[in-house]
Amino acid sequence: MSAASSSHSSTPPQSYEAAGVSVATGDAFAGFIKAMAVQHYKTSLPKASGGYAAVIPFTETQWLALTTDGVGTKVLVAQEFGQHHGVGIDLVGMCANDLICVGATPVAFLDYYASGNLNPDEAKAFIGGVFEACQETGMRLVGGETAEMPDVYQDGHYDCAGFAVGMVTPNTLLTGDAVKPGQWVIGLASSGIHSNGLSLARKVLQDPEHRQALLTPTRLYVKAMPIIRQAIEQANVPMALTGVAHVTGGGWRNLFRLNPTIGFEVDSPLPVPEVFDWIKSAAQLPDLECYHTFNMGLGLVIIIEAPDKSALTPLLEALNQANYPCGLIGKTTTQAGTITLPNLDITIQQDA
Amino acid sequence: MSAASSSHSSTPPQSYEAAGVSVATGDAFAGFIKAMAVQHYKTSLPKASGGYAAVIPFTETQWLALTTDGVGTKVLVAQEFGQHHGVGIDLVGMCANDLICVGATPVAFLDYYASGNLNPDEAKAFIGGVFEACQETGMRLVGGETAEMPDVYQDGHYDCAGFAVGMVTPNTLLTGDAVKPGQWVIGLASSGIHSNGLSLARKVLQDPEHRQALLTPTRLYVKAMPIIRQAIEQANVPMALTGVAHVTGGGWRNLFRLNPTIGFEVDSPLPVPEVFDWIKSAAQLPDLECYHTFNMGLGLVIIIEAPDKSALTPLLEALNQANYPCGLIGKTTTQAGTITLPNLDITIQQDA
Repeated sequence: MSAASSSHSSTPPQSYEAAGVSVATGDAFAGFIKAMAVQHYKTSLPKASGGYAAVIPFTETQWLALTTDGVGTKVLVAQEFGQHHGVGIDLVGMCANDLICVGATPVAFLDYYASGNLNPDEAKAFIGGVFEACQETGMRLVGGETAEMPDVYQDGHYDCAGFAVGMVTPNTLLTGDAVKPGQWVIGLASSGIHSNGLSLARKVLQDPEHRQALLTPTRLYVKAMPIIRQAIEQANVPMALTGVAHVTGGGWRNLFRLNPTIGFEVDSPLPVPEVFDWIKSAAQLPDLECYHTFNMGLGLVIIIEAPDKSALTPLLEALNQANYPCGLIGKTTTQAGTITLPNLDITIQQDA
Repeated sequence: MSAASSSHSSTPPQSYEAAGVSVATGDAFAGFIKAMAVQHYKTSLPKASGGYAAVIPFTETQWLALTTDGVGTKVLVAQEFGQHHGVGIDLVGMCANDLICVGATPVAFLDYYASGNLNPDEAKAFIGGVFEACQETGMRLVGGETAEMPDVYQDGHYDCAGFAVGMVTPNTLLTGDAVKPGQWVIGLASSGIHSNGLSLARKVLQDPEHRQALLTPTRLYVKAMPIIRQAIEQANVPMALTGVAHVTGGGWRNLFRLNPTIGFEVDSPLPVPEVFDWIKSAAQLPDLECYHTFNMGLGLVIIIEAPDKSALTPLLEALNQANYPCGLIGKTTTQAGTITLPNLDITIQQDA
């Protein structure tokens, strides 16, 4: 999960308590930082949708978007299978997918990679993934830090953090304010669990094949953005992109980051990847808990203002052709802080 | 130690091998990343002195400087004494002191803080230090990530990484090219060990008082820069700031990052803080090894072009008055890759 403007975000789901992660403590700490920020800074930064990235005015027309993220305990599963290339992709993906939520174009990336003792093969595989994902997302890897910290990390363990810089103009900045009831909700499929909910998933999955499925790298959505913008420009009717939400820690509750005054009715959810069935069954998780924790097949949410459903067809076709499996999954509603999935009889509440 | 443009830096000193850190492995990995960067990117970024930060042209007159760093195993000593405020200062300091080496003005900071289980008191002390140092260095803390990663970090352990953004203009950018033989070398005193050499120091120091001395936070040099610039502007003779070097991992060898074609004669080194005597004695380190590993009292190096020594007096007085203990420590020479300390009979070689 990603950086909030002037505050840390740390809102993994409730079921995480059982997996050893204290949500209440994290939330309290985030609140503490917010209070300190208010105390320190007299001026506010420009509002940026969902706090997915911090936006700083740099010149009159070019603003910076900044975000940082890690990949959580996915590193432990990577070690289990000796597969570290995907971790590099995940790290870039967690940051780049956050930048596009505020309307920014990713520009540059830096990584921090720390281990007890540097394992060159692992580190090379990791950085290979970082390079690959930077290329895919249009970022240049401009720097990084490789730390060897004996006694902090156990043998064979490592952690990583990513920092991404994007560019956004006052005109392209997404604030969330344009997200209103009655707009269309388009879902872009995730590739799997991405990089959230791992602490729970790796605790419950036993089958090696199922565990390995956790390593599928996070889908990178950056190139979907120009496709969406072009489809909107070429439409015969007035259309607008009003919001983008990256479904990260906290599962579908990320949708509430878009605009707290609206709700969502999702009557045509995307197919749920098998990995979530395995986790649900192994952990005996109630449905609601799954949507509170995992992306459940929904990697990125796009909110579109358009006069009717048919106006969306060219956009959906263009995304599908570009290998972004997607669909019109529902509409925004006036029910603030509520997501309903009528076909599954599930209601997700912001405050739950 | 800090990020190099398009490459990771990882050059702790040779004596680190004994402390469990593999220098050769780290260097080989840095080389691997550099080769990958050359392969991936057809264009170069603007040259930035010492690779202390990556510089990216943003607009014609405003460029970005980006860097990332950690604090190494200073976190372990902080845990020992339950003092985490200083770690936050160190984290900001390691990044901010790097930004000024390329002539940049620090603007924004983000932090990554990961632990096995979030300890609110420790985390609050840490972030309090981050806020304090951000204020001192003129940066705004715009975001961060707090990760709880059970099983990656042992109970009570944490790690942190910082990411700093600065602004630099093509005119104020320091590239190192202006550093030439016959210029004046001014040393700004360190506050102690800062955040480099900790893996060795904490292994050898036994006395609790000596160990606690390792926690003195890194001195922040950002506010020294406008003082230096003002003194240069107000001088009656032509003077110029040609280089700035932050003395981090690798000790005095950081000076070679300024310009590989010159050398240094340091005939009036700054006083060496007691902590280095303790370490030297406990580890039975040869003098040379100390200068290869620690800052030995020299936190920041400033290279000034000026017609004579007396021209430097107002600058030195202004720095001292602003609580930056400093002195004219020597001159640059034509002896490429060599630092001599004639009074101590020490010669530091770039390739050693």
